[in-house]
Amino acid sequence: MADNPGTTRRLAQFVAAARCDDLPPQVAHQAKRSLMNIFAAALAGRRDATINTALASLVPFSGGRQAALIGRRERLDVLGAAFVNAAGANVLDFCDTHVPTAIHPTAPIAPALLALASLKPVHGHDLLHALALGQEVACRIGLAMSPSHYNRGWHITATCGVFGAAAGAGKLLGLDAEQMVWAFGTAATQASGLCECLGTPAKSVGVGNAARNGLWSALLAAQNFAGPGEPLTGAQGYYHALSETPDLSRLINGLGESWEIMKTSYKPYPCGFVLHPVIDCVLDWRREYPGAAVRAVEVTGNPLLGLRADRPTVSTGAQSQVSVQHAVAAALITGKAGIEQFSDSCVNDPTVAAMRGNVTVVRDDSIATVAATIKITTADRKTYALSQPAARGSDANPMSDQDLEDKLRAAAATWNPRHDIAPLIDAIWQLDTSEDASQLTALAVPRD
Amino acid sequence: MADNPGTTRRLAQFVAAARCDDLPPQVAHQAKRSLMNIFAAALAGRRDATINTALASLVPFSGGRQAALIGRRERLDVLGAAFVNAAGANVLDFCDTHVPTAIHPTAPIAPALLALASLKPVHGHDLLHALALGQEVACRIGLAMSPSHYNRGWHITATCGVFGAAAGAGKLLGLDAEQMVWAFGTAATQASGLCECLGTPAKSVGVGNAARNGLWSALLAAQNFAGPGEPLTGAQGYYHALSETPDLSRLINGLGESWEIMKTSYKPYPCGFVLHPVIDCVLDWRREYPGAAVRAVEVTGNPLLGLRADRPTVSTGAQSQVSVQHAVAAALITGKAGIEQFSDSCVNDPTVAAMRGNVTVVRDDSIATVAATIKITTADRKTYALSQPAARGSDANPMSDQDLEDKLRAAAATWNPRHDIAPLIDAIWQLDTSEDASQLTALAVPRD
Repeated sequence: MADNPGTTRRLAQFVAAARCDDLPPQVAHQAKRSLMNIFAAALAGRRDATINTALASLVPFSGGRQAALIGRRERLDVLGAAFVNAAGANVLDFCDTHVPTAIHPTAPIAPALLALASLKPVHGHDLLHALALGQEVACRIGLAMSPSHYNRGWHITATCGVFGAAAGAGKLLGLDAEQMVWAFGTAATQASGLCECLGTPAKSVGVGNAARNGLWSALLAAQNFAGPGEPLTGAQGYYHALSETPDLSRLINGLGESWEIMKTSYKPYPCGFVLHPVIDCVLDWRREYPGAAVRAVEVTGNPLLGLRADRPTVSTGAQSQVSVQHAVAAALITGKAGIEQFSDSCVNDPTVAAMRGNVTVVRDDSIATVAATIKITTADRKTYALSQPAARGSDANPMSDQDLEDKLRAAAATWNPRHDIAPLIDAIWQLDTSEDASQLTALAVPRD
Repeated sequence: MADNPGTTRRLAQFVAAARCDDLPPQVAHQAKRSLMNIFAAALAGRRDATINTALASLVPFSGGRQAALIGRRERLDVLGAAFVNAAGANVLDFCDTHVPTAIHPTAPIAPALLALASLKPVHGHDLLHALALGQEVACRIGLAMSPSHYNRGWHITATCGVFGAAAGAGKLLGLDAEQMVWAFGTAATQASGLCECLGTPAKSVGVGNAARNGLWSALLAAQNFAGPGEPLTGAQGYYHALSETPDLSRLINGLGESWEIMKTSYKPYPCGFVLHPVIDCVLDWRREYPGAAVRAVEVTGNPLLGLRADRPTVSTGAQSQVSVQHAVAAALITGKAGIEQFSDSCVNDPTVAAMRGNVTVVRDDSIATVAATIKITTADRKTYALSQPAARGSDANPMSDQDLEDKLRAAAATWNPRHDIAPLIDAIWQLDTSEDASQLTALAVPRD
């Protein structure tokens, strides 16, 4: 690999020197959209059994009720809250996605910043700035080793998210460039998370740790806790261990000129984003032929679809979120693809289970990850060909601001129909004028 | 790599089924020796600035005074105590070493078990059994990917130690085989630590996390927090991501018949173990020629010596612990190789700094990691050739029980000469008859 001393330092200098006033308005707006989405995802996932167990395991060791949890009345210490809110935001796979890397950038970063805002006052515009910077760092570190890093089995949301949380928290703490390098070093030595855990509770530990450990790395750096001078590109550093031949130009070139947060998409469905164009096709067809009996479905998609989600046998809601077969079957039978369709009960519905057996997956290098084609054969042996060139929610076919508000409203309704979520929606859109960013989490806590 | 479904499960079954009564007496005795050594290492490192900063960063978030810290009066929650005691035990590089892998196995494991003993009663013989099992798991997981994993930049003590802590803690919690697989899955997705951080404070985060996160993985598994069925050998699992072509036979063959803990060595000097045969030679020569002025020293050793420790320029005590040049210079000038010789003040001594410039390193594949030869040239141009085939403390030239007691006494004396350390020494030798293993840590806490 190309040894390139100075890469970590240049990245750190960019973050340390960035000025809030220079953040382009459309980037700040996208940061608000990512917050709208992450609160929706966290409220939808707030009572998942995985989060209940992880939270219960931390309570006995937690240093008091310092920081709020989204959608729950329990409180935890600041590091624990960063963990639980990040894990909860990602548990249903309802996150935003940075399409070039498949990183879910907001889940490991925003909870770290909101938890830090419980520890010290943070202005809303500074939080938006730190969130955009954090996403920039996480996504660029991932870009430089995509797709080989993810293909090797690394859960890139966690392994890059820890740097994003460190960068964003470090910015809010006012770290200088040297301290930022140290924060990246402590983050690098904590970078972990395996794709083998996707579809199981263990996945949430990687994502939660990225938030907790990135935040902690920044707090340590603020106390001058040192690390190596080039943790990313040093001879025994992060890229040497976790990637093949990183393209460092993708990490460094054009910093501050373009923003990776503008390349994120949002999910209308709570499952792996590679499934989304497939679901679009199925739901469209189902609306047109609501009564047709289906004999077979052939799905053709990017190889990543097959690699991540060609999963004919599933037994839990979590597994179903990365199963083409289940997503197609549930959408065909219920005409929907919401939280209920990726629950244990839907997975164990015999009709859905039988339909999963009719679904096959074909891998095609020429198809983008946001696209898919499907061929449906009905009982009367008619065939229907459908294609979706850009999934709803992807950057070419984005969810509108209104769509994101609706997603948050729907998630809040599954949580507590009596809780008025409008103040949270308003607070997110007006965050750049708020002197207390920690109010966001407070507005997502049950009051009775 | 060879996909081998069942490897993780077989390892988990071994740990879950192991019976304390079947532990060979010499293995139990070696476990006591490893505890004697780790208390010495932790007492020597107890006031290191790295540990002070890490501890201070955790105190505000810690859930109360649940567990003791070695050599300190502060207390932390159980997870935090596992972190700090593990980091403190390793900070001075004064640990034991599993020679075939270079893992320091006791630092990430024993603190996890002692912290758990603060949470629930643990009998001494069960603690010794769990410690031996934890070391077995950590070292065998490392053996299967040695030396490529370490050479790639992974700090193997951390990346394998997390499994050892999970195994040992899981044994004390009575996990069944399936729960043990889950504990290994949650450990696998937290496995991290980079050699790039050696010689800096960030190193301690990797080792501390191995203890904390391994313990936490076992606690989660006890609550049936699930993970993948084959986290080690699954298609996107641990070995796929962190190694090249693992030899799984080294992981599985002969489990319960041989014990890796019998292959550990102990350090008479607080620095990287690759330096030890070099220091032996220098100290022997210095005793024979106390007044000779040295012009040049050529050190020839295993390539690992060059890779890890050919470090002519150092500025801190931590860096000096992995510097051939410093170790030789300090031993030549002071005639010693103790804690003082690897301090900031010794590093910055101008005489020592000048002598570092006279030391060169040659790499030779034919020399074992525990061996070295040196050639000393004096000012009057005489040359002296010395060799050490097996460093003091290595398995062919082991430290005696008395040596280990003396090491603990010396560490305790640097800490508090008035503290009577004899009760701790006695408690370690008699641990198999103690109903409360947590007493060990209590005996290493200052009483006034």
